[in-house]
Amino acid sequence: MPDDDRPHTDWQPGTRALPSFHGLAAAFRAGKDSPRDLLERCIATIEAREPEIGAFVVYDFDRARTAADAATARWRDGTPLSAIDGLPIGLKDVISTEDLPTGRGSEIFAGRPPERDAAVAWALRQGGAVIVGKTVTTEFAIGRIGRTRNPLDPRRTPGTSSSGSAAAVGAGMLPVALGSQLISSVMRPASYCGHVGVMPSYGVIRMDGMEPVCPSTDHVGTHTTTLEDAWIVLRHLSRTAGPIPGWRGLHGPAEPPAPAKPRRLARLYEPDWQHTDADCRAALEDALKSLCATGVEIVEPEDDPVLRRLEAACATSEATIMALVTNEMRWPFLDYDAKGFRFGLRLGPLMEKARAATMEDYHDALGARDELRARFDAAARTYDGFIGLSASSVAAIGLDNMGRPGATAPATCAGLPALTLPVLAAHGMPLGLQLVGAAHGEASLFAHAAWVGWTLLEGGSPAR
Amino acid sequence: MPDDDRPHTDWQPGTRALPSFHGLAAAFRAGKDSPRDLLERCIATIEAREPEIGAFVVYDFDRARTAADAATARWRDGTPLSAIDGLPIGLKDVISTEDLPTGRGSEIFAGRPPERDAAVAWALRQGGAVIVGKTVTTEFAIGRIGRTRNPLDPRRTPGTSSSGSAAAVGAGMLPVALGSQLISSVMRPASYCGHVGVMPSYGVIRMDGMEPVCPSTDHVGTHTTTLEDAWIVLRHLSRTAGPIPGWRGLHGPAEPPAPAKPRRLARLYEPDWQHTDADCRAALEDALKSLCATGVEIVEPEDDPVLRRLEAACATSEATIMALVTNEMRWPFLDYDAKGFRFGLRLGPLMEKARAATMEDYHDALGARDELRARFDAAARTYDGFIGLSASSVAAIGLDNMGRPGATAPATCAGLPALTLPVLAAHGMPLGLQLVGAAHGEASLFAHAAWVGWTLLEGGSPAR
Repeated sequence: MPDDDRPHTDWQPGTRALPSFHGLAAAFRAGKDSPRDLLERCIATIEAREPEIGAFVVYDFDRARTAADAATARWRDGTPLSAIDGLPIGLKDVISTEDLPTGRGSEIFAGRPPERDAAVAWALRQGGAVIVGKTVTTEFAIGRIGRTRNPLDPRRTPGTSSSGSAAAVGAGMLPVALGSQLISSVMRPASYCGHVGVMPSYGVIRMDGMEPVCPSTDHVGTHTTTLEDAWIVLRHLSRTAGPIPGWRGLHGPAEPPAPAKPRRLARLYEPDWQHTDADCRAALEDALKSLCATGVEIVEPEDDPVLRRLEAACATSEATIMALVTNEMRWPFLDYDAKGFRFGLRLGPLMEKARAATMEDYHDALGARDELRARFDAAARTYDGFIGLSASSVAAIGLDNMGRPGATAPATCAGLPALTLPVLAAHGMPLGLQLVGAAHGEASLFAHAAWVGWTLLEGGSPAR
Repeated sequence: MPDDDRPHTDWQPGTRALPSFHGLAAAFRAGKDSPRDLLERCIATIEAREPEIGAFVVYDFDRARTAADAATARWRDGTPLSAIDGLPIGLKDVISTEDLPTGRGSEIFAGRPPERDAAVAWALRQGGAVIVGKTVTTEFAIGRIGRTRNPLDPRRTPGTSSSGSAAAVGAGMLPVALGSQLISSVMRPASYCGHVGVMPSYGVIRMDGMEPVCPSTDHVGTHTTTLEDAWIVLRHLSRTAGPIPGWRGLHGPAEPPAPAKPRRLARLYEPDWQHTDADCRAALEDALKSLCATGVEIVEPEDDPVLRRLEAACATSEATIMALVTNEMRWPFLDYDAKGFRFGLRLGPLMEKARAATMEDYHDALGARDELRARFDAAARTYDGFIGLSASSVAAIGLDNMGRPGATAPATCAGLPALTLPVLAAHGMPLGLQLVGAAHGEASLFAHAAWVGWTLLEGGSPAR
């Protein structure tokens, strides 16, 4: 290994940059801690680390302090607006806000005045959350890469496209940040930065005001240090912003699901597995062995034709998403293009494809997605979920080396809920364990993930 | 009948305010007519009739003339951009345009500067269509009623919410105008004003930039004097703007489908049939008898349990739509409300319901829609389509008397393609004949409608 590839950290599974926000509620109520105090701890970390990491496009501590003070008073009065009242949160800069500009990583939008709150921003404020700032995104969450650094090793990428949200949570600047995922844009950066990343089922949270390039496939997702914080945020967003019109919302209890042992999991060999090195493979295999040792059955595709057929469909999932992208981006990107707006490196070639895209191509891609969903649904009748890596490797050295996005493409394309747990390490860096659930099976997925995380980190099982 | 209820007109089926735009293509190519000449004829009618009718919020003849001149040159060069190059068109004022303000019938939006083109406005320009102006809508296409008058009898309503688009086409000011339909907002005003109104299958045309109160159910639709103009416009919009992301586009040939005789139609008793008077009922019954005389089988619900079950599901379709509305309008209307924006009469009570709406209510409404769709799908296996009235009555006297919207609620709720033909009359006013097709069966629906229209108007059949 060349000298400058040596790890700068020796990250260990179980490392948490911040405690759970959900766990602070009792202290808030008792007056032993407060949203304002929590915010000040976050601001101290931001001031210490932001100059090196560059997670934010813009922040506004004054507004955040005012909002945190109001939340502090509500908790002490016993009248919090919601489970996330006072939560300091960062928003990927594709999410429109009425009090901060929204640049979408693009020169077209840079410097525009603030707009109407996106549905999720409005829903956060309804619940009392404290929007601290907007975090760096690639251009329109798909193009040119920003300059954010990985908080665990500043030579490395934090992952894309929710780079700033991942870096902010990974550095402990914030307990929660929102991202969006079209292929891997929440789970891969969460894997690279060593925290929990969750993408719920497609449609459970309204996307208005986010202007995704591919509205049929893009998801709002969360970066958090804990599963329970992801649960309370996603559930609040789904119930307050509502689902994407015509889709169903997130189903489950107000309290984060208690750990539950999965019976049988299907091994998911993500499409980029061939690029996964021996150390990363070994980290996963060790974890799977530990789970098997507790009695969880983990089935390989070679042992079940249903899984072999699923794996074949997964192989083309990234290509299917890109075919959907090049059709759905026609509006408004062909209009932007005709007006002479300039795009960064990755968007140019996509525009060429958008120009050539036909409705027949689009119907083919929708058909491929329908088939992938059907194969996942068939497997979900026999398995409690799917398990694999969240990324083909740890974060690479070089801010432009964003890594391969294929590991999470199957679940994203199919619109299934998926999450990454920071329970594996390789090369001194974190590597995410991916768990995928059945469509709208968030409650079971969270319960299984809590059990798996506990089992791998504590070496025991809360359910035994 | 009291004196002032006497008809001012004696409207006759077959009356066309303007010839088909599609039929002018050969003359455009040959230089015997031109988009500019057509536009001037439209402008002359607008100048003559607009002061009385009030169909427009705003128009811009200078811009329209420039666009029409460019189209004129392209047709004469043999290089039209599309089948709708040079088409003078009006847009319901919920459709954002970059060169004209978009008021959405609301004091909140009145006077705002123009915005980015909605997907359909952009697609129209891509095809060379000439956007003449923006037409009157009720508040957000659901609330307070505008002051537009019915061009056939100015004492009467033109119908809502696409009031201005219906009046403009009914008066011959424009050959085509776009509307939108949540329950009946294209087909009912088209029925009242005596022209063709079409609502395609849900999802075949992208709605971005229209901000519907209920995105899961709202449709772009057309007001036209002929079926062929509706076909070329809808097909162009679907292929250029694209479908709603995740949905399939309009399937069918470039040329309007040739007339084809339906084999078997199911009689659709719309939920408001009980309010339909004897004259209107007789107009429909006479038409059905004429169709039966040509050998078309028309089956009554009492003769088929599949249709009886469908009818039961149709009875609650309007209530289902309103439950979807009160959930989906939560964002952004609760935000508008919190900011102190004031709404007109109908929106206030809806806001109260929106405030009380829960995710569980929403899931119930989606379930009711799924059941309605399933019952239509079951019937579509046996029937070529469904036939009934497009409205429970002719246009009422009094601009605030918008009439009952229930007749078109079943097809709109289920997302099936439907259209109204101006082939019936009662009380000296037009009454629309409703035809509903199977999901994504636009090509068959248009072919059957062309045959039905020809048969009823000409007394013969082009397919025999």
